[in-house]
Amino acid sequence: LPEGADAVVPAEYAGEHGGHVSVAAAVAAGKHVGVAGEDVRAGSGLLSAGRQLRPQDLGLMASVGIARVEVVRQPRVRLIVTGNEIVAPGEPKGPFQIYDANSSQLTVLVQRDGGVIESLRKIEDNETEITQALTDDGVDVILVSGGSSVGSEDHAPNLLARAGKLAIHGIAMRPSSPAGMGRIGSTLVFLLPGNPVSCLCAYDFFSGRAMRLLGGRRAEWPYRQSQRRLTRKIASVPGRVDYCRVALTGDGIEPLAISGASILSSTTRADGFVIVPGGCEGFPAETEVLMFHYDAPHV
Amino acid sequence: LPEGADAVVPAEYAGEHGGHVSVAAAVAAGKHVGVAGEDVRAGSGLLSAGRQLRPQDLGLMASVGIARVEVVRQPRVRLIVTGNEIVAPGEPKGPFQIYDANSSQLTVLVQRDGGVIESLRKIEDNETEITQALTDDGVDVILVSGGSSVGSEDHAPNLLARAGKLAIHGIAMRPSSPAGMGRIGSTLVFLLPGNPVSCLCAYDFFSGRAMRLLGGRRAEWPYRQSQRRLTRKIASVPGRVDYCRVALTGDGIEPLAISGASILSSTTRADGFVIVPGGCEGFPAETEVLMFHYDAPHV
Repeated sequence: LPEGADAVVPAEYAGEHGGHVSVAAAVAAGKHVGVAGEDVRAGSGLLSAGRQLRPQDLGLMASVGIARVEVVRQPRVRLIVTGNEIVAPGEPKGPFQIYDANSSQLTVLVQRDGGVIESLRKIEDNETEITQALTDDGVDVILVSGGSSVGSEDHAPNLLARAGKLAIHGIAMRPSSPAGMGRIGSTLVFLLPGNPVSCLCAYDFFSGRAMRLLGGRRAEWPYRQSQRRLTRKIASVPGRVDYCRVALTGDGIEPLAISGASILSSTTRADGFVIVPGGCEGFPAETEVLMFHYDAPHV
Repeated sequence: LPEGADAVVPAEYAGEHGGHVSVAAAVAAGKHVGVAGEDVRAGSGLLSAGRQLRPQDLGLMASVGIARVEVVRQPRVRLIVTGNEIVAPGEPKGPFQIYDANSSQLTVLVQRDGGVIESLRKIEDNETEITQALTDDGVDVILVSGGSSVGSEDHAPNLLARAGKLAIHGIAMRPSSPAGMGRIGSTLVFLLPGNPVSCLCAYDFFSGRAMRLLGGRRAEWPYRQSQRRLTRKIASVPGRVDYCRVALTGDGIEPLAISGASILSSTTRADGFVIVPGGCEGFPAETEVLMFHYDAPHV
């Protein structure tokens, strides 16, 4: 429910809900008789603005005759996957080409976070074509995969600066340092590195959060958390945030990788991740740290 | 991924993944050069059967050229909402009619648990029409809301017994005691009480679990759990399982309701529920009990 849109019991409803009446032999007077207004009373508040609706909330609103309710719109998202070297899975591939891993992972990440894909556009490292896709018409968020760094073929940052505003480019974290973000009109634009671990990490740190907030959800990561003991140390460089993939072991968690932005299997072998804050040199073995679990047993 | 369908790196792939090559001045030899097979090697196992796929799993499969993968089919579900007294929200309603709360809550519960709604059929307490809807053609699960008890208008149990097998009817729990279940051919049929809290509870105890298992998910409830201290006792009758709605207070949880199968607002005011097992007389105040949270901050 959006701000200012509390659900209220309609006055004409007048609380007749719960009207099942059953009478049997040897039943005390009034037993099994529903009383008018026993559930909710006319004019009372049903659900508050800002609430993420649960199944029973829809049931309760329906039970007082509310057939339609104002909700926060799902953000519309354009996915732009760039790169001359990118080939769709299932297609033949040359020796210096790579398969497109980011379209599929970004698509389900956007869906997970409540976004609706407006279009998925695969385009070459071509300034004209990228510029045509960088427009704010009808979308709330644009995700650009690839070409986000500072190489000669990395057009996205300059083109975003020309089309709107490149607010941030280059982030003190690993992976995902070549990420960027900005706006075109009111559309949020995220430049995600093409390396698939960087792409996943940059999406999760920045784009996913924005997506959930735009859709009226809570900003927090959709990952279960737990405190776990490290079986080995995590070494990190101060001044940089690290996204360390970890695996559950019998009695703790084992760090798998911080570097290796192209090693996507590090995120599929991992059970989750640990964040090393920027001001920190890492964690010694045996430290209890906060782990975010990739699998969501509650979903 | 279904049983026996591990994802494996195709032999022709031969590990060229990770081929981004960048060369700059003053860089050590080999630095920033991707090595063939650095991520995954041809013929190695990628993901095991039975796994619920994560966003990065799709990315990893795509990265080795896998465009399609065999998955467990989503169960197809028919919703049958019965009752002469039921009126759709938004329609005019007479004094002895009630609005249909169960269609909306069951629809989103089925979606939450990975089911696909084949059809939602609203029918009167009419034996012929209910019988026509009780067929196993093209659906894995049938949910019948209403008419599940032993009254003269409660046709569903007898009609299920005639169409297939009524395996269970009447359950020692509160709410949801008039629930039933059985089969028609290989289609699972759940008879859910019409009272909306009973319907929600019976769905969550029985149908949701079946839905998740049919779709290859884990059976467990999709509710976050925590240990919480009761601020007041929960009284219960031994021999009956109780579904007690509870609210979070500053320093514990407060029991709201066990009875009141028609009081759907008890489930919207609640933050979750506590199960009192059948062999138990309840819990004294101050007991630490397992709470299931309705809201899923990880979703």
